[in-house]
Amino acid sequence: MNASNSSDHPLRVAVVGATGYAGGEVLRLLLQHPAYLQGKLSIGALMAGSSAGTSVAEAMPHLPQLAHREIEASDIDKLREHDVVFLGLPHGHSAVIAQQLPEETLVIDCAADFRLRNAEDWEEYYGGTYAGSWPYGIPEMPGGREAIAKSKRVAIPGCFPTGATLALWPAVASGLIQSQINVVSITGVSGGGKKASVGLLGSETMGSLKAYNTAGKHRHNPEIVQNLCAVGGKDIALSFTPVLAPLPRGILSTATALLADGADEASVRAAYEQAYADEPFVHLLPAGQQPQTQSVVGSNACHVQVEVDNKAGTVLLTSAIDNLCKGTAGAAVQCMNISLGYEETAGLAIAGVAP
Amino acid sequence: MNASNSSDHPLRVAVVGATGYAGGEVLRLLLQHPAYLQGKLSIGALMAGSSAGTSVAEAMPHLPQLAHREIEASDIDKLREHDVVFLGLPHGHSAVIAQQLPEETLVIDCAADFRLRNAEDWEEYYGGTYAGSWPYGIPEMPGGREAIAKSKRVAIPGCFPTGATLALWPAVASGLIQSQINVVSITGVSGGGKKASVGLLGSETMGSLKAYNTAGKHRHNPEIVQNLCAVGGKDIALSFTPVLAPLPRGILSTATALLADGADEASVRAAYEQAYADEPFVHLLPAGQQPQTQSVVGSNACHVQVEVDNKAGTVLLTSAIDNLCKGTAGAAVQCMNISLGYEETAGLAIAGVAP
Amino acid sequence: MNASNSSDHPLRVAVVGATGYAGGEVLRLLLQHPAYLQGKLSIGALMAGSSAGTSVAEAMPHLPQLAHREIEASDIDKLREHDVVFLGLPHGHSAVIAQQLPEETLVIDCAADFRLRNAEDWEEYYGGTYAGSWPYGIPEMPGGREAIAKSKRVAIPGCFPTGATLALWPAVASGLIQSQINVVSITGVSGGGKKASVGLLGSETMGSLKAYNTAGKHRHNPEIVQNLCAVGGKDIALSFTPVLAPLPRGILSTATALLADGADEASVRAAYEQAYADEPFVHLLPAGQQPQTQSVVGSNACHVQVEVDNKAGTVLLTSAIDNLCKGTAGAAVQCMNISLGYEETAGLAIAGVAP
Amino acid sequence: MNASNSSDHPLRVAVVGATGYAGGEVLRLLLQHPAYLQGKLSIGALMAGSSAGTSVAEAMPHLPQLAHREIEASDIDKLREHDVVFLGLPHGHSAVIAQQLPEETLVIDCAADFRLRNAEDWEEYYGGTYAGSWPYGIPEMPGGREAIAKSKRVAIPGCFPTGATLALWPAVASGLIQSQINVVSITGVSGGGKKASVGLLGSETMGSLKAYNTAGKHRHNPEIVQNLCAVGGKDIALSFTPVLAPLPRGILSTATALLADGADEASVRAAYEQAYADEPFVHLLPAGQQPQTQSVVGSNACHVQVEVDNKAGTVLLTSAIDNLCKGTAGAAVQCMNISLGYEETAGLAIAGVAP
Repeated sequence: MNASNSSDHPLRVAVVGATGYAGGEVLRLLLQHPAYLQGKLSIGALMAGSSAGTSVAEAMPHLPQLAHREIEASDIDKLREHDVVFLGLPHGHSAVIAQQLPEETLVIDCAADFRLRNAEDWEEYYGGTYAGSWPYGIPEMPGGREAIAKSKRVAIPGCFPTGATLALWPAVASGLIQSQINVVSITGVSGGGKKASVGLLGSETMGSLKAYNTAGKHRHNPEIVQNLCAVGGKDIALSFTPVLAPLPRGILSTATALLADGADEASVRAAYEQAYADEPFVHLLPAGQQPQTQSVVGSNACHVQVEVDNKAGTVLLTSAIDNLCKGTAGAAVQCMNISLGYEETAGLAIAGVAP
Repeated sequence: MNASNSSDHPLRVAVVGATGYAGGEVLRLLLQHPAYLQGKLSIGALMAGSSAGTSVAEAMPHLPQLAHREIEASDIDKLREHDVVFLGLPHGHSAVIAQQLPEETLVIDCAADFRLRNAEDWEEYYGGTYAGSWPYGIPEMPGGREAIAKSKRVAIPGCFPTGATLALWPAVASGLIQSQINVVSITGVSGGGKKASVGLLGSETMGSLKAYNTAGKHRHNPEIVQNLCAVGGKDIALSFTPVLAPLPRGILSTATALLADGADEASVRAAYEQAYADEPFVHLLPAGQQPQTQSVVGSNACHVQVEVDNKAGTVLLTSAIDNLCKGTAGAAVQCMNISLGYEETAGLAIAGVAP
Repeated sequence: MNASNSSDHPLRVAVVGATGYAGGEVLRLLLQHPAYLQGKLSIGALMAGSSAGTSVAEAMPHLPQLAHREIEASDIDKLREHDVVFLGLPHGHSAVIAQQLPEETLVIDCAADFRLRNAEDWEEYYGGTYAGSWPYGIPEMPGGREAIAKSKRVAIPGCFPTGATLALWPAVASGLIQSQINVVSITGVSGGGKKASVGLLGSETMGSLKAYNTAGKHRHNPEIVQNLCAVGGKDIALSFTPVLAPLPRGILSTATALLADGADEASVRAAYEQAYADEPFVHLLPAGQQPQTQSVVGSNACHVQVEVDNKAGTVLLTSAIDNLCKGTAGAAVQCMNISLGYEETAGLAIAGVAP
Repeated sequence: MNASNSSDHPLRVAVVGATGYAGGEVLRLLLQHPAYLQGKLSIGALMAGSSAGTSVAEAMPHLPQLAHREIEASDIDKLREHDVVFLGLPHGHSAVIAQQLPEETLVIDCAADFRLRNAEDWEEYYGGTYAGSWPYGIPEMPGGREAIAKSKRVAIPGCFPTGATLALWPAVASGLIQSQINVVSITGVSGGGKKASVGLLGSETMGSLKAYNTAGKHRHNPEIVQNLCAVGGKDIALSFTPVLAPLPRGILSTATALLADGADEASVRAAYEQAYADEPFVHLLPAGQQPQTQSVVGSNACHVQVEVDNKAGTVLLTSAIDNLCKGTAGAAVQCMNISLGYEETAGLAIAGVAP
């Protein structure tokens, strides 16, 4: 099915895990999607676990267009009646649902279930049964867009891997940096999800900075390495340090590595210019201007910068994304657009809600 | 000129004061406006004072679509070549420019110059020459939409008056509250503008709450009173307390007044249901749910609630808006849509960027 | 027992509910108390419910001096061995413990159990068995200091009542305002406590403002009315609107009322000058300067301002406190100081941690 | 002069640059210093540039004890009458003043003027005349305390160098890490000072993360390298990335480097245990617990953690400080205490103001 050819009924889209932050952001984006506004795409079932039975007005007051809709419990039979299913569930749950959906249903998973190509990585970092892997939802990686376009299944990347990969892959792919790579990624608190927990209370997070899941423990480690290897990286040794910071949305990723022999700022810069020249969402900033997360809030944009420290012999690669949008739900809608043949930018903002 | 009939050339839109927060928000909204996306509306001159000569990339990195555009100095001749001019200047400057623009140019002023109908109010609160008044940019007030539709000049309200008026006018118009009205409006810091000042530094505003321009000193006082009188309020005695809070965007307005004889929660609620039943942007929340500013960030929505305190004999009327969007630039684009005959919601989000 | 006479053993102080925000703040203050630093006061049992068995290092990493101490389960026999017991428990729990402690133990309750003098108020707002009332922990109210000095039991006020009462009582006591009083109090999120809940997540509270427990529903309503009546207020009709704002600590209270006949700004100001002239912690700011919560963070200070709006005929009374310090634990230590005969300001900062 | 021997008059302490954040924090700490509370230390002249003539009430409302004091213009003759002078000025100004003060005056400089031992570093990073170097105000570095104790001149380190050095020096000194070191330090906005600037507005900093002065450009680069070389580091190649985050106070420093041959987590941990075993302010956290800045706000503490990533072959060294306290003014008071023979912790909190 190609969206532009859709005939007699509007596309039916369901969201499972609708009341989480990923699900809510998918809905926010669909509500401003031209296909929705023109009646060619309809928002069908909204399913969730513990919040089943509540109204959208109560669970997601920022979506008044859906205020009177009710959140339903998960129901595979009902899901089968949809053309597109977004999954915004904790990892481990997506695979179970996905396996019961028809092949022709477009299934877009925002969880980790189908991201890793290596079963051992899955077992080490997630545990439980390995479900396999799907085409990976970073269209801006080499071959990424094409794989998504051909698939009815897409695995949306983790938010940190999206930021780190967009900051790093052109340098890795062109062999301009060495393989010992240090990434420090600072994230807003919505990355922690909408589950009640003391550590994510406003009182604990406002006015504070804290690294967590450090020194190889974070589940996004193998995913970042996988992405860098996919573009030709060899013997990647990744030190990844996630830091929690007091803002709702946004990830600033800083990556450093030693320059490869013969590389310099001009050659690195050229690699990024080439990689992102035609990308609608990824923007290499003018030299001297560092990305800021504020510029991409609410948008599907990723801002990137490249800079060489000649004294240290290192290159600094930075990126800013909105973790819920380009880092999750925006990528999901972008991949839906690609898979269905919509305009890739449909429903997705390029400009950020700043200040 | 009616937009839907626009013929051979796209509408040319200029923004003066383009690098301020109001101007930047107008641009953000235009960039996602369907007329812009379809090539029927073009973004022309971007003018500003002290930032003339800089690039948009530098001044407004959140707008990558315009990154290579340069900010120009104000130039009346050039402005005359546009069909629509948005003014986002400090008060006192708009009138000078407006008077030099052709009658057929749609001029939308985000400053205070043309808001007040009473010259004495102007002199007391602003000083300098009184420039007169234009149709007032709250389409949701009685007669508001019609006046805007007929006019080539619109005065966009102050952000506090928008929040307070939408919270209060149905109760005042229906005579359900007494005339002694107490408004406390809590605002994010972008309301203070983009000018360097110690009092608005992050260090001074994060982690702090402070009332300011209290006890009748704030310039929005007479504008709120004017709006309440316009719907039939008599002898309005307004105590207005603005409070600065540590968030970038958002105004929460709380208004209290004694119930009029015979009024009760049901009658007040009914007045709001009727007033806002068909409004695309103003939403009376289900009973028991208070508005939160997060729900309207980046959107043109206004959430409203009504509640009676039987012990105190008072009614509490609350509203949440995004001060830069529904409170300024969103209202400006909404009024442009009305005046030009576009769909009123074109380019404007109803769902907020939450969390 | 009088502290200055304490003889052979240091005073033993216990904290029950030690890992909550109130308990943690009591400990922070005790650790900088001169009696503690001089070895005359020792920190004994640290008790809690669900966090029993954890170390202080884990539960309260901001208190490195106690890092190796372990949180114990509640144990009345052990509590009896202490000279001072601070209770930082949810309401309903304090009364049960207090009744089992010896009369000579100084018991300071940070919960609501003993605040209300009217059993009906208790039943309406809290429910369950009414436990009676204790001397009330606002030393700055008329007669407050004396009652505390004579007592081995002190009920520490709620944080909102502290801010509102210090802003209002001199005006009420001197008959300078009318009895219809409107209070809007804006609070940081630590007022919501340290229990996991979705509504208090950083994602839900940063970047948002929201009123809650409005229109007479908040439990602090009857306590504020009680305080105003205690200083002579009659027929007080209170509209109280608490608002949650994105900062960790701080309450800004704004109170408005019509001026009484014959009152003006000078007379109101004089009442406050007289009321607070000798108070170490309550400061009437110079005319024209509004309180800001940043100025009192981490301190036991309360900043107050008085201003008349002649057009509206109203007076605006504002105060800023740190809800966890002057609003809870600071008041608790201040009352301990008074009851034990220490210097009233011992261990308590007057200067705030700004910016 | 030794403080404990001070005879007939209290020590007179002056603060120049009193209204900046460093100066204000020095004052906040002095006001709770036991010598001040006991009348043995008096706060003398408060001098500043553009704010001369204003009251403390206006310039620093968080210091009510000094509310009625007036800020004076700089006056060398008056400064000479003081025993201790704290300088909280922009770099370049301290040297001019310091050279005119008597040798016996204890001068503590919070600016950069006397930090660097290498004139070439000064010229490259600051420019203008190099003024020489003074004993360096990190007592916890090897030999640091002794040098300060003997001196009447102390150069207080930059805030980033304090955080990075306390995180790194034990590993460097013991040869347990390789010389290619990557530091990412995330700071609150008060590090940017109290001067009006658009980039530090609340609107620009709340809800945003941004790296700045990256790739070797930050002035603290040579100072960090100097400190690591001072403890035996050789051929240090430092990549330093400062990041601005939305909180008022706090620096979280993350440092990574390859482990040296033969080193492992146990040996690195042992080096830190030994280095900080007797330090009152520097705390190595229990294994598995990462520092958070909230825990040190308002205190002079530094929390440190050590962790090895065996897959990457790297060690992660993290620290949290309050940039205005341990990072500036707290260190200044600590050094005053050491130089004057006071208890080193006098007037300085170890517990942080959390949450």
